[in-house]
Amino acid sequence: METFQKAYIAGFLDGDGSIYVRLKPNKTYKFGFQISPSIVFYQSKKKLNYMKSIQKLFGVGYIRKRKDGIIEYIIGDKKGILYVLELLSPYLILKRKQGILLKEVLQEKELVENPRDFLLLARKIDKFEELNYSKKRKQNSQIVEKFLTNEGLLTP
Amino acid sequence: METFQKAYIAGFLDGDGSIYVRLKPNKTYKFGFQISPSIVFYQSKKKLNYMKSIQKLFGVGYIRKRKDGIIEYIIGDKKGILYVLELLSPYLILKRKQGILLKEVLQEKELVENPRDFLLLARKIDKFEELNYSKKRKQNSQIVEKFLTNEGLLTP
Repeated sequence: METFQKAYIAGFLDGDGSIYVRLKPNKTYKFGFQISPSIVFYQSKKKLNYMKSIQKLFGVGYIRKRKDGIIEYIIGDKKGILYVLELLSPYLILKRKQGILLKEVLQEKELVENPRDFLLLARKIDKFEELNYSKKRKQNSQIVEKFLTNEGLLTP
Repeated sequence: METFQKAYIAGFLDGDGSIYVRLKPNKTYKFGFQISPSIVFYQSKKKLNYMKSIQKLFGVGYIRKRKDGIIEYIIGDKKGILYVLELLSPYLILKRKQGILLKEVLQEKELVENPRDFLLLARKIDKFEELNYSKKRKQNSQIVEKFLTNEGLLTP
């Protein structure tokens, strides 16, 4: 990819995209929650070809059509995310911190060995809320802590 | 400005900006309407410094704070618009056509000599509605035509 392409897409992501990690309750996972990272681009469904061309440039991720007429280009796998971040990070401004945090979360996720590690990681994920001016999340580290405590995995 | 800066800002404008021309009824103008062109960038008021840095790069336009907490960086003067378009046009994708149309409107505006010319220009301005997927505009070339006819400036 050329510099102007990487810079353009970084600007587009800063303007109308999203970088975040969600905690999804899922009892099939060791600590009760799935960690779900995403880089998402949004656009009107009328711009499907445009979105496809960005997807083609990266060669990762998938496109989803929402019922409200918005299409989302989502990169949700670790390898894809790290690749996209490597290309865009030098040019991100508004979402630079989210990019750094996302990379840290993906790295630390691999190092989680026990419930305590997992709780610390969940607290790190909480930081996206402030960075993205999100509404109060339903799933945050407090919920994770309660779950782990109730399951007897964590001593209060 | 560096290539990566121009490309980044073009991406940002494509994602979260606007290029348009408005017809504003104003009886002090020769043909009853002011032609008001704009390139606008939007962002949360929390990102004022970011917006100021883009304004500083261009050296044109002004920043306005809306009551709803959004700030707008607006370039509305001909010289400023042509300068910004010259820098960004090579990198615009989603708003490329709007950029071309805006430039044409500014050029043809200078050549308007009579009510007929003005009406043709108003019809060109109508094209922004489709390009921007705007709601039906209140002020369009039909209103201009009615006004000019009522004033006796145009023969039906």
